[in-house]
Amino acid sequence: MNEENRNERWEKQLTFCRELDKEKSISRVTHLIGRARPENDAEHAWHMALMAYLLQEYANEPIDIGRTILMILLHDVVEIDAGDTYAYDPDPTRKASQRERESAAADRLFSMLPEDQGRALRSLWEEFDAYETPEARFAHTMDNFQPMLLNDANQGQDWLDHGIVRSQVLERNAKTGSGSETIWAYMQTVIDKHVRQGSLRDDRKDEDQ
Amino acid sequence: MNEENRNERWEKQLTFCRELDKEKSISRVTHLIGRARPENDAEHAWHMALMAYLLQEYANEPIDIGRTILMILLHDVVEIDAGDTYAYDPDPTRKASQRERESAAADRLFSMLPEDQGRALRSLWEEFDAYETPEARFAHTMDNFQPMLLNDANQGQDWLDHGIVRSQVLERNAKTGSGSETIWAYMQTVIDKHVRQGSLRDDRKDEDQ
Repeated sequence: MNEENRNERWEKQLTFCRELDKEKSISRVTHLIGRARPENDAEHAWHMALMAYLLQEYANEPIDIGRTILMILLHDVVEIDAGDTYAYDPDPTRKASQRERESAAADRLFSMLPEDQGRALRSLWEEFDAYETPEARFAHTMDNFQPMLLNDANQGQDWLDHGIVRSQVLERNAKTGSGSETIWAYMQTVIDKHVRQGSLRDDRKDEDQ
Repeated sequence: MNEENRNERWEKQLTFCRELDKEKSISRVTHLIGRARPENDAEHAWHMALMAYLLQEYANEPIDIGRTILMILLHDVVEIDAGDTYAYDPDPTRKASQRERESAAADRLFSMLPEDQGRALRSLWEEFDAYETPEARFAHTMDNFQPMLLNDANQGQDWLDHGIVRSQVLERNAKTGSGSETIWAYMQTVIDKHVRQGSLRDDRKDEDQ
């Protein structure tokens, strides 16, 4: 590689590194434990990555933990453009447009990088999105478990604030067990506890009436 | 492992995962690009980890990128107890007590985990601290480059606010080149630029007088 190409490669890498900074300003619905403020996407990814390392023994299948961690660190980068879409967003057009918005964001963001790196990261992000490999499945388990861990420590206040009902949480977690049956079994005990405590409304009763 | 030991292991892991949440509240001196607010330790670690992946080709020696990323994600966890010590902290007692405070924090934090995991993470944290392996050296290069990238984008305002002088930055970065000569060469051009622009005071003149 000549000097000019080397400089161009370096400048592209730095520009992308600066762009990453914006992910710290993408606010989520979940709050930190103690509820001082909402969590942001960068913190969420950092927390998930360390949880994946610590809880990897509960994955249903053997996983490449290095690739899983990288996938996790990267998984929300498209929200720099697309914004966070709350798992229980009541606006159907927003949920429906999520994939389109995120795909356009991936086009813009990953094309900032040198071509080889852009291709590698886009592929990893698409692997997460496709939810098919053991690594992607376990990364999604973390993506669903990490906010539940915080919300549980906060007595389910995020669910209460948004009037979330039991069936929504079950639907959201329909595939969580495909990454880890053990963790999903624990999460179900958390859901049951919040239903008993009234922080998660039991909409099975709605159907009975 | 029997049921009781399995439950105890799981509970220890979850308790540590909840404890990690506190790192999001450890504020640093460096600000996000645009200076809307100071950065926190969790965001800093996330940013460094992705930068390490993207810039690994500039490491002086081959590195195990997975171990480097894990080391980075973990490197500031002791600040949950010990707090952030600014690289240019003017309080000499605070800088002097940093190692002691962080070692006590490591004792408390890593002992929350199951023994095998606590030992593994403590060892990785000590490897970072010892600054001897290629992975630790490159992780430190990221630890010094990431805040400079933000501060440079902010016209050196963090340096200006704290009256930082050129020799302090050079002293802080005395070993940065041992992780990556290429990145350190770039960082020196950033330092020179800020000296020229007046956002980093040139204390060589002090000695001349």
